[in-house]
Amino acid sequence: MSFVLGLESSIDGSQHPHDRPQGLHAGRPLLVRYDLEAVGAAVTRDELTQRESSPWRYRELLPIEDWEAMPHLEESMTPLVHCRRLGEELGLKRLLIKDESRLPTGSFKARGLAMAVARAKELGLTRLALPTAGNAGGALAAYCARAGLESFVLMPIDTPAVNRDEARLLGAQCVLVDGLIDDCGALVAAGAESMGWFDCSTLKEPYRIEGKKTMGLELAEQLGWTLPDHFLYPTGGGTGLIGCWKAFDELETLGWLDDTSRPKMVACQAAGCAPIPTAFEADERHAERFENAATVASGLRVPKAVGDFLILDAVRASGGSARTATDERLLEWTWRASALEGLSICPETGCCLAVLDDLCRQGAIGADDTVVVINTGAAQKYAEVLGAELNLPLLHPGDEPNWPQLFDPC
Amino acid sequence: MSFVLGLESSIDGSQHPHDRPQGLHAGRPLLVRYDLEAVGAAVTRDELTQRESSPWRYRELLPIEDWEAMPHLEESMTPLVHCRRLGEELGLKRLLIKDESRLPTGSFKARGLAMAVARAKELGLTRLALPTAGNAGGALAAYCARAGLESFVLMPIDTPAVNRDEARLLGAQCVLVDGLIDDCGALVAAGAESMGWFDCSTLKEPYRIEGKKTMGLELAEQLGWTLPDHFLYPTGGGTGLIGCWKAFDELETLGWLDDTSRPKMVACQAAGCAPIPTAFEADERHAERFENAATVASGLRVPKAVGDFLILDAVRASGGSARTATDERLLEWTWRASALEGLSICPETGCCLAVLDDLCRQGAIGADDTVVVINTGAAQKYAEVLGAELNLPLLHPGDEPNWPQLFDPC
Repeated sequence: MSFVLGLESSIDGSQHPHDRPQGLHAGRPLLVRYDLEAVGAAVTRDELTQRESSPWRYRELLPIEDWEAMPHLEESMTPLVHCRRLGEELGLKRLLIKDESRLPTGSFKARGLAMAVARAKELGLTRLALPTAGNAGGALAAYCARAGLESFVLMPIDTPAVNRDEARLLGAQCVLVDGLIDDCGALVAAGAESMGWFDCSTLKEPYRIEGKKTMGLELAEQLGWTLPDHFLYPTGGGTGLIGCWKAFDELETLGWLDDTSRPKMVACQAAGCAPIPTAFEADERHAERFENAATVASGLRVPKAVGDFLILDAVRASGGSARTATDERLLEWTWRASALEGLSICPETGCCLAVLDDLCRQGAIGADDTVVVINTGAAQKYAEVLGAELNLPLLHPGDEPNWPQLFDPC
Repeated sequence: MSFVLGLESSIDGSQHPHDRPQGLHAGRPLLVRYDLEAVGAAVTRDELTQRESSPWRYRELLPIEDWEAMPHLEESMTPLVHCRRLGEELGLKRLLIKDESRLPTGSFKARGLAMAVARAKELGLTRLALPTAGNAGGALAAYCARAGLESFVLMPIDTPAVNRDEARLLGAQCVLVDGLIDDCGALVAAGAESMGWFDCSTLKEPYRIEGKKTMGLELAEQLGWTLPDHFLYPTGGGTGLIGCWKAFDELETLGWLDDTSRPKMVACQAAGCAPIPTAFEADERHAERFENAATVASGLRVPKAVGDFLILDAVRASGGSARTATDERLLEWTWRASALEGLSICPETGCCLAVLDDLCRQGAIGADDTVVVINTGAAQKYAEVLGAELNLPLLHPGDEPNWPQLFDPC
């Protein structure tokens, strides 16, 4: 049994039962509410830290009814890596990158879809579908395979090859669509009835956010039950930012934070697809669809997010901001950070680092501040983007190359 | 301080100091020897299991002098995933896949190169080089970046795009060679003096094997200080198989195994590059170079391994075997296993699963046997190989597809 009380509408506060499949209410997400008093009586934060190193160690704050039966892939908590060289370049003493590339399928999508698939199975669903232009398809497929459910993935034709491959490899039935992700979403909706699909689009069902929340729970534990001063998040659908903010709320209510100061939440988007910064600047609670969205960071190519107001509410409540970086600069920082730290930084996270550079230069972040940046996935999944930058010298056997001339100056 | 006594030649038993950089002796690897009596007096196996979940928890059995200064990427132990569906298909109750894709850069190469780079740094080396046709370049680059050393990676021109990209991204100076991996190796040797390179080719320096050994140490701990009945390993250079066998030796000497029965070691190679099975069948201790080597499993494309006799010795001492699978069958099992379990199985591991199918059909492995297969890397790094199999249906916005007809029969 879980500690879930029910589902609450994020837009009007209405209550909805959690013992059956649920989608949006009034076009907006439902949030899981827990009996936090009972959670606090059932477990202490110190007991949690004695459990195995897994996102599911926080199980009293998660929606699963039967943990024994939960389909999983033996996930580990992801590390918070102290980046001294990169920090020095930015003028920061304590820059920490939470490296989500260590999760199954190499991205943070594993967290949310593990929860969504596990709850779908508990609720008796058997066929899950979603539209994706990136890492979500592979993660849905992986957990459905493990759970013994069927998965269906609809992808725009320009979805990166690795993402197309992994979804199919991991057992999803896949279709390419000569259109955008919205077109894929419309096709999922159209096929739902005849195919018996449950729509697992992010925030359209209530449990992906609970999985993403574990990023924030891990972070608090890893920082000794405090929170950083700044939290930079590459924002596509924004589920992780919303999830972490929800985690911080729950930890504060439980009294588990030694210092309840919240981080300034910084929603980072590419200049070519920036609905959230646009709404932030215009003082709007909801974001307009960003037309002609274009960026090399495929995970940021989300022109309209169903949770826009939840992102903007958190950013504003935290005293943070919503900012952009151009593709040129986000790629520059992807390369620079990876080579300085040995972490496989994805282009979406490169966007956060470019924004971080701006914030440091502007004096909005101080040298002694603790800064956390989420690396949402493995750079290795972005071959098209990164390979385009490569122009490696070519040798032939028997060549006697002038070695020092061959390489960049070191 | 470490518990290392020194380095011992694997071919003639001669002793060599470990306080300076070392390569091959008489063309064959040097092995690290420890004062195991002192290790046993310094730590118990139960104390080890209380440490953080990391390959470096076994530090008394590793060659690092100063663990505080060791450059690392906060690696986690990798999970041993019980595969019930795949096991059922093969007629096995206890099939366990050790999923190495969760390591930094998405492959088991991280283990060995973390140790090689850390020791190189301790010994004052600053420029490390290696030839690779696969995952080793990215791992070398990552740990050199983290350690603040320079890395140089020479790759055949047909190296998978992801591997080329990641090595460069992570800061290596890279060169493509219009030839085979041997040609790259020759160029590394030729450039060593003028460039000040230390050659980190697998088994040519003594520490990559120590890193790979942690796979075997983790495995023993995860199985409650026993070993499996069968151990299937995708064998390119064979460092992991040699390393695990060395781990089992050391654990037995320490008296840490509750049951000292060894697994039957099965060296699996592609039919298109099978020097080890060829030598095994011919009762030879050394393997001939396999001419015209060709397989889609790039990690198995090693026509001649400097540790051939160490692989064959371990296989024979264990009562195991060396076996092949064709590219067609290894790809078939890559797809089948990934879709059944949600694990991102690489083609090299697909080879092990095809061999496992043979062994099960032949009755060499029984339904109740514990079988461990190593998944050496993330399938996501093999886009060229896996994408070639894809032929996804294409839709256009506004289409009203006949959904059931669109998908494979479920």
